[in-house]
Amino acid sequence: MTAAPLMDWDRSRRTGLPEAVLAEAKSSAHLTALLTEAQQTNHPLLLTRLQPDQYEALPAELRDGLDYDPVSRTAFAGLLPPLSGQPRVVIVTGGLADLPAATEAARTLRFCGHDSVLIADVGVAGLWRLLDRIDTIRSFDVIIAVAGMEGALFSVLAGLVQSPIIALPVAVGHGVTAGGHAALTSALGSCAPGLTVVNIDNGFGAAQAAVRILLLRAPG
Amino acid sequence: MTAAPLMDWDRSRRTGLPEAVLAEAKSSAHLTALLTEAQQTNHPLLLTRLQPDQYEALPAELRDGLDYDPVSRTAFAGLLPPLSGQPRVVIVTGGLADLPAATEAARTLRFCGHDSVLIADVGVAGLWRLLDRIDTIRSFDVIIAVAGMEGALFSVLAGLVQSPIIALPVAVGHGVTAGGHAALTSALGSCAPGLTVVNIDNGFGAAQAAVRILLLRAPG
Amino acid sequence: MTAAPLMDWDRSRRTGLPEAVLAEAKSSAHLTALLTEAQQTNHPLLLTRLQPDQYEALPAELRDGLDYDPVSRTAFAGLLPPLSGQPRVVIVTGGLADLPAATEAARTLRFCGHDSVLIADVGVAGLWRLLDRIDTIRSFDVIIAVAGMEGALFSVLAGLVQSPIIALPVAVGHGVTAGGHAALTSALGSCAPGLTVVNIDNGFGAAQAAVRILLLRAPG
Amino acid sequence: MTAAPLMDWDRSRRTGLPEAVLAEAKSSAHLTALLTEAQQTNHPLLLTRLQPDQYEALPAELRDGLDYDPVSRTAFAGLLPPLSGQPRVVIVTGGLADLPAATEAARTLRFCGHDSVLIADVGVAGLWRLLDRIDTIRSFDVIIAVAGMEGALFSVLAGLVQSPIIALPVAVGHGVTAGGHAALTSALGSCAPGLTVVNIDNGFGAAQAAVRILLLRAPG
Amino acid sequence: MTAAPLMDWDRSRRTGLPEAVLAEAKSSAHLTALLTEAQQTNHPLLLTRLQPDQYEALPAELRDGLDYDPVSRTAFAGLLPPLSGQPRVVIVTGGLADLPAATEAARTLRFCGHDSVLIADVGVAGLWRLLDRIDTIRSFDVIIAVAGMEGALFSVLAGLVQSPIIALPVAVGHGVTAGGHAALTSALGSCAPGLTVVNIDNGFGAAQAAVRILLLRAPG
Amino acid sequence: MTAAPLMDWDRSRRTGLPEAVLAEAKSSAHLTALLTEAQQTNHPLLLTRLQPDQYEALPAELRDGLDYDPVSRTAFAGLLPPLSGQPRVVIVTGGLADLPAATEAARTLRFCGHDSVLIADVGVAGLWRLLDRIDTIRSFDVIIAVAGMEGALFSVLAGLVQSPIIALPVAVGHGVTAGGHAALTSALGSCAPGLTVVNIDNGFGAAQAAVRILLLRAPG
Amino acid sequence: MTAAPLMDWDRSRRTGLPEAVLAEAKSSAHLTALLTEAQQTNHPLLLTRLQPDQYEALPAELRDGLDYDPVSRTAFAGLLPPLSGQPRVVIVTGGLADLPAATEAARTLRFCGHDSVLIADVGVAGLWRLLDRIDTIRSFDVIIAVAGMEGALFSVLAGLVQSPIIALPVAVGHGVTAGGHAALTSALGSCAPGLTVVNIDNGFGAAQAAVRILLLRAPG
Amino acid sequence: MTAAPLMDWDRSRRTGLPEAVLAEAKSSAHLTALLTEAQQTNHPLLLTRLQPDQYEALPAELRDGLDYDPVSRTAFAGLLPPLSGQPRVVIVTGGLADLPAATEAARTLRFCGHDSVLIADVGVAGLWRLLDRIDTIRSFDVIIAVAGMEGALFSVLAGLVQSPIIALPVAVGHGVTAGGHAALTSALGSCAPGLTVVNIDNGFGAAQAAVRILLLRAPG
Repeated sequence: MTAAPLMDWDRSRRTGLPEAVLAEAKSSAHLTALLTEAQQTNHPLLLTRLQPDQYEALPAELRDGLDYDPVSRTAFAGLLPPLSGQPRVVIVTGGLADLPAATEAARTLRFCGHDSVLIADVGVAGLWRLLDRIDTIRSFDVIIAVAGMEGALFSVLAGLVQSPIIALPVAVGHGVTAGGHAALTSALGSCAPGLTVVNIDNGFGAAQAAVRILLLRAPG
Repeated sequence: MTAAPLMDWDRSRRTGLPEAVLAEAKSSAHLTALLTEAQQTNHPLLLTRLQPDQYEALPAELRDGLDYDPVSRTAFAGLLPPLSGQPRVVIVTGGLADLPAATEAARTLRFCGHDSVLIADVGVAGLWRLLDRIDTIRSFDVIIAVAGMEGALFSVLAGLVQSPIIALPVAVGHGVTAGGHAALTSALGSCAPGLTVVNIDNGFGAAQAAVRILLLRAPG
Repeated sequence: MTAAPLMDWDRSRRTGLPEAVLAEAKSSAHLTALLTEAQQTNHPLLLTRLQPDQYEALPAELRDGLDYDPVSRTAFAGLLPPLSGQPRVVIVTGGLADLPAATEAARTLRFCGHDSVLIADVGVAGLWRLLDRIDTIRSFDVIIAVAGMEGALFSVLAGLVQSPIIALPVAVGHGVTAGGHAALTSALGSCAPGLTVVNIDNGFGAAQAAVRILLLRAPG
Repeated sequence: MTAAPLMDWDRSRRTGLPEAVLAEAKSSAHLTALLTEAQQTNHPLLLTRLQPDQYEALPAELRDGLDYDPVSRTAFAGLLPPLSGQPRVVIVTGGLADLPAATEAARTLRFCGHDSVLIADVGVAGLWRLLDRIDTIRSFDVIIAVAGMEGALFSVLAGLVQSPIIALPVAVGHGVTAGGHAALTSALGSCAPGLTVVNIDNGFGAAQAAVRILLLRAPG
Repeated sequence: MTAAPLMDWDRSRRTGLPEAVLAEAKSSAHLTALLTEAQQTNHPLLLTRLQPDQYEALPAELRDGLDYDPVSRTAFAGLLPPLSGQPRVVIVTGGLADLPAATEAARTLRFCGHDSVLIADVGVAGLWRLLDRIDTIRSFDVIIAVAGMEGALFSVLAGLVQSPIIALPVAVGHGVTAGGHAALTSALGSCAPGLTVVNIDNGFGAAQAAVRILLLRAPG
Repeated sequence: MTAAPLMDWDRSRRTGLPEAVLAEAKSSAHLTALLTEAQQTNHPLLLTRLQPDQYEALPAELRDGLDYDPVSRTAFAGLLPPLSGQPRVVIVTGGLADLPAATEAARTLRFCGHDSVLIADVGVAGLWRLLDRIDTIRSFDVIIAVAGMEGALFSVLAGLVQSPIIALPVAVGHGVTAGGHAALTSALGSCAPGLTVVNIDNGFGAAQAAVRILLLRAPG
Repeated sequence: MTAAPLMDWDRSRRTGLPEAVLAEAKSSAHLTALLTEAQQTNHPLLLTRLQPDQYEALPAELRDGLDYDPVSRTAFAGLLPPLSGQPRVVIVTGGLADLPAATEAARTLRFCGHDSVLIADVGVAGLWRLLDRIDTIRSFDVIIAVAGMEGALFSVLAGLVQSPIIALPVAVGHGVTAGGHAALTSALGSCAPGLTVVNIDNGFGAAQAAVRILLLRAPG
Repeated sequence: MTAAPLMDWDRSRRTGLPEAVLAEAKSSAHLTALLTEAQQTNHPLLLTRLQPDQYEALPAELRDGLDYDPVSRTAFAGLLPPLSGQPRVVIVTGGLADLPAATEAARTLRFCGHDSVLIADVGVAGLWRLLDRIDTIRSFDVIIAVAGMEGALFSVLAGLVQSPIIALPVAVGHGVTAGGHAALTSALGSCAPGLTVVNIDNGFGAAQAAVRILLLRAPG
């Protein structure tokens, strides 16, 4: 059998998007090899869905070089690019349980050189909290909206703002809303126009979609 | 084979709820027999899901005695009870496509002796239209909320009012929201507390649930 | 990133419904902070889905101040309101496995100041047990019906009583009834009129819906 | 290409069950050939799901030889066997909309030489109608229970009788109960023991299952 | 709150079917109370889905009085009835992984006083193994067919025998057949006539359905 | 009952997106009233999902004022804005059956003042046709990718370009891909990063999402 | 907008598989243009899912040049290749309702120059009919098995033969087997090894898969 | 009860395919008995889905005789056949997470005497990696394509090669692609012709299907 190389470091060059690894379900040996290759070739690397026990199982010298965040289960290896300027992305969440996916998005943006602002826990059950912040939200170039359960936040928000808005449904809910499919469906079927959607819990993908938009216009 | 009687006129006496017939898929001969029996025994009758062609196929003398509404596809036969006083129920819809189910609820309430008020087309994509009317909505004893597509109206409304609120999801939508299941799921999984739900397009059931509540308190 | 406040203590004032926290999946540090804030601001707090290991992990001084019930996995913090008088709600269950959700409903009612009566294990497989108690059940203002498996209890009960009836389907069953979806569907699609429904295992929501009705009429 | 023979007249001899043809979607030419072959070889034949327009399109001389029932959409060709004695099967339906499937079962039984009794429209929304007839129902050797919507009839009936009971769910319902899947699930997941189930709208299959039981014991 | 009695010992008298308890998810204290009540009132009791750790957690003196089978996870308490004579039921399985459900059926039959014969591992992938035993299978009054995966055994068997045949689908399979739904669907939608079906893994229910048939005709 | 105004002409002013009406299922009288109101108030209007028979049923004088396209079933009423300059959006389709949705997107863009380029029938079954055009596709600011069946086009395209890419799944397919859900799932679950998705057949929504992005940067 | 060419006549040269057009839902003008282009460029063309009314709507001169089969709804245009020799493919069906898909497979094979043999109506409900023909079936190089309903034929056949076997599930069935998904699942989840599967009703695809195998070995 | 023999060693002789055992969920005692029987009767045996803890729990003397691979969770017992010559099968995977199923296929092929070549991690997100290897892939007689997530690899590959291609979808993915159903659907509904499909994660079945093809033609 012939073995494939560990990483396709060329892809980043071709698409302008940085290199990332979905760590979940990968063995400790495999992650160690990937991180070592990244280190030796001077490539920064983003690890997503890196479980705490996977992180703990890495060799100490590699672990020390990682910037690991247990909430989003993401880690940075290598040098981060400088920030591109004022934050142009706002991440809005319905509840506190949405923070893991929201933080994965924020950390992916940071890995790509973009700052962001988080406005958390402004779900529609308490509509005034959202309305109080709507002018702030409107001032950003890209909005990532994060919600689970029935996902009503997506429609309300899309009806109030003009910027591109990316819906990030999350697997927060019980009974009929368990698994995030109800929030996903609400986002896709929204009565508000021009909302686009990514997969459940895919904070990484939401951030990458934002980066594609940000690359269109350099600030200032 | 032994045949069952056409209608169980006793049920109404036992439950306090009036007698209704789901007309859809019943033959013209069958509907004619039911209406004749109701006429001869002096029982008022509510027909639901009576399709226009079913209505047209009835004998002229029976058709003349019916109060038929093509929007809700409902018909009244016999004398209606007097209205019980000021309307205590408000029916709120997200869009104009929700009117068939909303009107089925309003007509069922009327058949039971209760007036209602309709506030239509206040879906969350244009949130200010809803907020402009929220004080009026709050003044009613029972709220029937009607919405299709992603059903975000249910959560927004339930977060703003204290009265009992009955969610009536409708089969309005395309793609992932076709058939009304997305609106149903949003109602059941709402982040706003104390919302209850009836089957898709079941305006009759929503009204019956409202009648059960109205029977608890006779107006002053 | 900007942080949101821990609790929206204003919502209770706006909707008349008390403040509750879904404890499941929240960290010990987060729950500790919430309970401390509630204690310091003199707000009573209801915790739902608080797992035994989450309860055990709380600081002893906070744990001592909690009234924790392991069956329903609910906890009260702070002073409870006095009871509003004779119980006006009856909670009827099909089997003993329905008790966790039924007790969550009873405890939520208690937190809101309302007493209730529980009639357990009267499922339709032994119809006479239900019929023996039907006159008692009829004497209450609001009925919460709790059932899993195929949920036949909902239709039988709704055909026998006139009061508002809230169906609470539970995730009790195997094979085709696993997860509670069959019971939910039976409640929504019931042939008996005027039944309303809440999400699977949502005892909290069923109680909140009952409270909305109880607030309509002050006893005596 | 090689053609297969039209009917496998041997199967009946091997299994003791008579020969039947699912007519739906078969062309007029095909049905004509089948009926002609049955006539020429002196085999009685049961046609199921024979749509009215298919019946009308048959040659007049064949049509005249058929005993066609438009409610169940079944037709008999050839001589029927004599009846085996007193009816040992009772067919119980929840509503009038269940009659097509119930009649398909009754006609299939008749084709196999067995009489049956029909008790219609005793659904659980009016429980007393069922309880009034329960002693009659108990007196039969086999019970075929027919119900659509949420199918609560199956569990109630199975909890009250000891005879073998075959649940026949039907595609009667709207919204969540459309298509008969909810009734099917209720039958399979019933809390009452020893209920068995056939496919949705499969009156033919329910009758065949009854015949398998009837063949076990010849009446005294 | 008022408590319900632990068991409804009357049901057995009314339906002729013995008393059984679904042990899964019941606490040790609850099971202990049920077994003690059964012992004190001299009622035999069948426990189903009694997990090994639940069995181990019972008080030693109760455990000693139980006849526990870890394959089917069933236990008998109290005196079993004498066997009714030669076995009239055959239990046929497609594979060895079907044995837990098959044995639950056999043990339930034994608890009701009926012997049975097991023919295991005759799935259709090796058709000749089934055909070699088909004459034996045909000699029984009732057949319980047990299969997982795609459930092809049900149709093959039903096409070869005349006795009543009860399909018991089991949750054995991977990918599209995981959970037993594919086997269930194959049983319900079989092209072979007169097959009836019970819920996935419901060996108890299959046996109860067989008992209903056996009660029709006393042997010899 | 109180009636709502026909159109919310304010929404356009608030969100910057033009006013559109989903014509499907609306009565001729209703559409006539809407078009008359638009004409009298000098508002341009976009009608989507306007079926040919609905178009034919409009009064001749209104029909003459409409620019109707039967492929996309869209119509323009009133004056269109001038085009904003060179086309910045490319619409790429997998097959010819995708043209209705693709054209709905193109016509919606035109209604908003934006030109677009269509590259049709470059599905992955003939990969070279897509690769031959990839440099052209890369030169646009926004890509709308349209595909049905298994939707493999989305992933291939997203792996080759850097611009924002909006996946528009369409209901083209048979068997497992009927209804467009498979294409939708492929878009959401794509292995290529930063793809966003709209509802099945929602060409209008895809165009609105593109407009949100185009509004960020005015061309040169 | 730029238009794509009508057909990609190069693909056939690259893959060795002939050119085909899915006619369903294409307009008469479009089909006319395709057929004219094929005629003018001397390319044979296979049309699949060509509905009778589409065929009738073609210009008479084009229609006369087509070899149209209404059972499979396929048409050949242009010269067919000579047959490659003795038939190496056998097509086996469970029932007569499977003939449309089976014939689509046979006609596609013929279009590619391969003869085939059809053995119809040997479903497992009458197992002996299949066993009587099993030696004939075994003598072919490739087997296409066609079945609807529960699809038990696939497993039985795959357990009896060694040749490559392609399962073609069809949308024949009612209730739980409607739409062909049950047959598809049975094929995928078969307990018999080495079966491969194509989409529901995809006779064209099954034949193409067979052609890929036939191209491996030229007959002696 | 009568016990069935442990293995059907005759099946291999009848179908030409070797004997295999699905180890998952089998007890240690059962596996020990099977392996001992295989050893004593000199039959080689393939164990699939043998979990590491099951392997560790085997008696040391049996474990020493096994060739166990933890990636694919397969084990060989007994003598392997000699390899049949140059590898004629290529196994192509989209990502590294597809290796367990891919290796199960490779090991099953080896057990049957066939070598294979693995080309891993050439998913369509980096299309050039696949295109760089396409000529190598084309040189093999049979292609097994392995992919999870949205499964776009299947269509791209099938459009580029002429050999028989077997799609092996795997349960790699999150959200809408969790469980492998999306990849399965993409394979079945592919726009590329002549692709066949096996169950999710069924590397064993894919290899068996390849063996059926390889048995048609002996190399050179």
